[in-house]
Amino acid sequence: MPSMGHSTEDDLHTKEMDIRSLPSSHHHSQNMHRIHKVGVPPKQNFFKEFKDTVKETFFSDEPLRPFKDQTKSRKFLLGIETFFPIVEWVRSYNLSKLRGDIIAGLTIASLCIPQDIGYAKLANLDPQYGLYSSFVPPLIYAFMGSSRDIAIGPVAVVSLLLGTLLQNEIDSETNPIEYRRLAFTATFFAGITEATLGFLRLGFLVDFLSHAAIVGFMGGAAITIALQQLKGFLGIKDFTKKTDIVSVMRSVFSSVNHGWNWQTILIGVTFLCFLLFAKFLGKRNKKLFWVPAIAPLISVILATFFVFITHAEKKGVAIVRHIDKGINPSSVNDIYFHGEYLGKGFRIGVVAGMIALTEAIAIGRTFAAMKDYQIDGNKEMVALGAMNVVGSMTSCYVATGSFSRSAVNFMAGCQTAVSNIVMSIVVLLTLLFITPLFKYTPNAILAAIIINAVINLIDIQATILIWKIDKFDFVACMGAFFGVIFVSVEIGLLIAVGISFAKILLQVTRPRTAILGKLPGTSVYRNILQYPEATKIPGILIVRVDSAIYFSNSNYIKERILRWLTDEEEKIKADGPQTIQFLIVEMSPVTDIDTSGINALEELYNTLQKRDLQLILANPGPTVIDKLHASKFANLIGQDKIFLTVADAVLSCNPKFAEEP
Amino acid sequence: MPSMGHSTEDDLHTKEMDIRSLPSSHHHSQNMHRIHKVGVPPKQNFFKEFKDTVKETFFSDEPLRPFKDQTKSRKFLLGIETFFPIVEWVRSYNLSKLRGDIIAGLTIASLCIPQDIGYAKLANLDPQYGLYSSFVPPLIYAFMGSSRDIAIGPVAVVSLLLGTLLQNEIDSETNPIEYRRLAFTATFFAGITEATLGFLRLGFLVDFLSHAAIVGFMGGAAITIALQQLKGFLGIKDFTKKTDIVSVMRSVFSSVNHGWNWQTILIGVTFLCFLLFAKFLGKRNKKLFWVPAIAPLISVILATFFVFITHAEKKGVAIVRHIDKGINPSSVNDIYFHGEYLGKGFRIGVVAGMIALTEAIAIGRTFAAMKDYQIDGNKEMVALGAMNVVGSMTSCYVATGSFSRSAVNFMAGCQTAVSNIVMSIVVLLTLLFITPLFKYTPNAILAAIIINAVINLIDIQATILIWKIDKFDFVACMGAFFGVIFVSVEIGLLIAVGISFAKILLQVTRPRTAILGKLPGTSVYRNILQYPEATKIPGILIVRVDSAIYFSNSNYIKERILRWLTDEEEKIKADGPQTIQFLIVEMSPVTDIDTSGINALEELYNTLQKRDLQLILANPGPTVIDKLHASKFANLIGQDKIFLTVADAVLSCNPKFAEEP
Repeated sequence: MPSMGHSTEDDLHTKEMDIRSLPSSHHHSQNMHRIHKVGVPPKQNFFKEFKDTVKETFFSDEPLRPFKDQTKSRKFLLGIETFFPIVEWVRSYNLSKLRGDIIAGLTIASLCIPQDIGYAKLANLDPQYGLYSSFVPPLIYAFMGSSRDIAIGPVAVVSLLLGTLLQNEIDSETNPIEYRRLAFTATFFAGITEATLGFLRLGFLVDFLSHAAIVGFMGGAAITIALQQLKGFLGIKDFTKKTDIVSVMRSVFSSVNHGWNWQTILIGVTFLCFLLFAKFLGKRNKKLFWVPAIAPLISVILATFFVFITHAEKKGVAIVRHIDKGINPSSVNDIYFHGEYLGKGFRIGVVAGMIALTEAIAIGRTFAAMKDYQIDGNKEMVALGAMNVVGSMTSCYVATGSFSRSAVNFMAGCQTAVSNIVMSIVVLLTLLFITPLFKYTPNAILAAIIINAVINLIDIQATILIWKIDKFDFVACMGAFFGVIFVSVEIGLLIAVGISFAKILLQVTRPRTAILGKLPGTSVYRNILQYPEATKIPGILIVRVDSAIYFSNSNYIKERILRWLTDEEEKIKADGPQTIQFLIVEMSPVTDIDTSGINALEELYNTLQKRDLQLILANPGPTVIDKLHASKFANLIGQDKIFLTVADAVLSCNPKFAEEP
Repeated sequence: MPSMGHSTEDDLHTKEMDIRSLPSSHHHSQNMHRIHKVGVPPKQNFFKEFKDTVKETFFSDEPLRPFKDQTKSRKFLLGIETFFPIVEWVRSYNLSKLRGDIIAGLTIASLCIPQDIGYAKLANLDPQYGLYSSFVPPLIYAFMGSSRDIAIGPVAVVSLLLGTLLQNEIDSETNPIEYRRLAFTATFFAGITEATLGFLRLGFLVDFLSHAAIVGFMGGAAITIALQQLKGFLGIKDFTKKTDIVSVMRSVFSSVNHGWNWQTILIGVTFLCFLLFAKFLGKRNKKLFWVPAIAPLISVILATFFVFITHAEKKGVAIVRHIDKGINPSSVNDIYFHGEYLGKGFRIGVVAGMIALTEAIAIGRTFAAMKDYQIDGNKEMVALGAMNVVGSMTSCYVATGSFSRSAVNFMAGCQTAVSNIVMSIVVLLTLLFITPLFKYTPNAILAAIIINAVINLIDIQATILIWKIDKFDFVACMGAFFGVIFVSVEIGLLIAVGISFAKILLQVTRPRTAILGKLPGTSVYRNILQYPEATKIPGILIVRVDSAIYFSNSNYIKERILRWLTDEEEKIKADGPQTIQFLIVEMSPVTDIDTSGINALEELYNTLQKRDLQLILANPGPTVIDKLHASKFANLIGQDKIFLTVADAVLSCNPKFAEEP
């Protein structure tokens, strides 16, 4: 491939060294202005540079900062606190905090029990597995997690995603035992994925799913989940296994004459109205937040009692029928550690783990910002991972932070992760004593509870805002939304990730450039499209490049600058004999440049030379000026063609344009 | 997911509208300074915005520009010229140009004939297929291509890559016919890939392989190719099919006692020295460029004659033995359009096509920059694609632009693509009449020619420069280099692409931030690390964010700014009771912001509010200010907290710091 041409002489090299060693004290007067030289930062050696990059990439939160200047025993204690934050906050725990945590814990427990039973069905698992997953993981999290507000347990979207992915591999009805074993395997690897990302400090990977894509994905998943509930809600027996809207609606309408059960619909509609009304009350009056929080449990109790006394199950109303009593059995031996299901479980686990992580981190950050405390994303991932690994060995499936329950937890006044412990104890008691009572709970009420819960995931306001702010984000949002609804959750997720990446690539391939003009009465140069009053300087074209110049865009930037030049020359050709003699490239936003970028600048310089145009650079940053020197490009165009500001550069071309008084 | 909190009132909305309609004429005096308001560009509708993005992404070179304001018949002619540039330049063709083209054409023909025979072996094909590929594709290119200097034909790296990929699927020795059919299939799809990328205007995809990665990949491929030549060079019969250095060296040394042939080595070494000396002569005196260009053909003639008279082939010197006479047979029916080899051919074709494209585009650009003419990348791809599609039907394998021959073409004074036609005719005559004479050509001489040719691909100077300029690029370069040498060409390519992408992701995930200070005697604020003389303003922290704020970095930027704040507060706590009251975020380099970015700014604002710190923005660009308004964030922090320059912002916090006289 073409090597870079360098027409530098050795004597220039010496001169460069001089300037390098006098980075700042090199003022000289010109036109009564003190011209500052562009500073060249002190040369760093490779390992320092490499260390800094690694530090900023993986340890940008400086996890070792508190360890600095501490005694050994103190460091040991801090080390324990790092992995078990409970050790830290338990020392300042008091009765008033306990009161808040107990109230919050009881509230989220009442909300989670009916939800858990329903969510387990989304994952094609028996109801008790939902409850199991609300017992062990929250306990582990309480010891290791750093969020004070998150409520741990199974969530709708992850349950649906896991159910879909598992069902693709094993049919849950014909092979329930193998299906369950694969579920635990996936949960195990979801945990391993989460913990590994945390340990390797790769937490920033969750940032690659854009906010807009998540809004779309969540909205689509909510609608898909709600549609799935039509089975229980309408009492349909023969329902499709697919999740896309077309298959589901076909299932629903093909059974309209013989498959719907009016008693079921009556129960479902009544309690859905009740739940929606409770939600409405809670929204209108923030003090009544507990009304929508306990409404599901009340619905379950009322509906179960109603079915029990009327024996509606004999009229075709589907009921839960059976939930295993007792705490989580061990599932260590159920995990596939070899065979073909190992790979499949791993793959499913990675996907489910990443989504669970994204949700939990978003919740943690949101509530941490509200109460102004810091969350360590990587530490949090280790906690979430550990809880899922332990969960997979105790018959739990993937648990994470739930948006709806975390919000209730927050509003109920939780103070620490103790509210999760309280919830966990309530679930334990439920498993030990109350599960048989769920026998007569109609499936329709669970469907109503889930529909009521997932409606919150459809964030229309956020979608409108996305439309207003960024059209590309809106495309990503809609892509994910329709992908989930019309195809499947995986495809929706794939679209979301794909569009997010496309956006990043677009950003680095086609950076913006702008023509600058002088704001009247100042020495400030700004984009003439943004400031129509800014005026161009005759004979000088000032172009600002708005991005680092890398291999992915260096060629585009070079050609774009030349196109600006052609446009400008055509424009002024109409006006008269005036020609452009100077091209000033404002480099302030150019944060970095690589070998391809230097190459492109050299090509630009050569082309301009052929057209008798002078290339001038304004305000290159520290990294850029360093590389311009290292590559001898600074000598090629001339050290005196690099200026601190655009104003200085313009002044050097045409002293008439000194700053106006 | 969390919706964004907005504490905006409707009356603020009205105020915003006023400012929006008066973007520029809104000066007001303060401290004797005319403060310009930050301009809000006129609102664009969605389709205009979308159209502009699409145009800038896919049609950044304005291919329709010449068509503007032309008559219909002129447009038709221009349309033909678009696909057949020959129509344009042939009108100004003259005898003096023809003279240059004939000399250049004859020179590259003499260089290409021996190379072609050798390169065909790299692709595990019979020697005539190399010659075929130097006949048809250059002809097609001459009519459709827009580069005047490129020399078309088989090249070493693509031949090696194609050979390796094909050999993975079919063994060329046991199934030569199927192997060849797959080669044509891959060539067909390589052409389709190239043409499609051009038609869809996705040419910018080739920019995603960074310069550094290409340098490393090429260097590694050159060494791998040279090592492969040891077979012919040493006369080894039993040689490994693998390409990694370990396998090859094992092959070489295990046959040292019984497999080497001293007569072969003698011929090889003699002529390699001759070739290297010719190259040395050509480098020392640019006028003697033709010496290294015709040296290979002279070597072939001398060596063939020598073998013919001494009958060295009976002493174990391997010779070409047989080349089919006559022009390219049709291979339309050989291409697999169904069956399992369709998919494999497609996959191999896409990879080989992309690499061929990368090489051709790089050559085209290099020489276009030297002679200052424009190359349309997308049009060029269509030409390269068409030539390979036609080639695949006429027994050619993937052809592209050759670096070494294009350089010779340039130095020999080629004027237009006619030099390719001349070369093509010479190859045609060779195929028709001379091929039988190659019977006694020793393989060792072909090996020497290839070794001599690929040495140029090892660009040590470029590697040193990459090390000096960008350490990350150097890692990519070395990764690709060692990947090719120690594993295989595919793995090397994969590493090159992977590291290139990692660099892009790193760029968008961990953008730089800088603390700014005031340069003494000016109102200019610059990075205090680059300008140690810049001084901080007491009570004010000025942070510059050096990147667009997107979902991939919004959270990092927020946390990084807060960390700067904590660092600064710790530093000044030691000094006295002074506290920081204002945080100015310099947004000049922030070219864009998305919903996640706005979200992060809101969180930053909320956190600062809790700490009694005022957030101030300086110089947001057109897109950013537009989105700050659309999201009502501008109203949230207050319109009067957004300034044109850092200097204005500082002035508003502390009028004492007016610009020094």
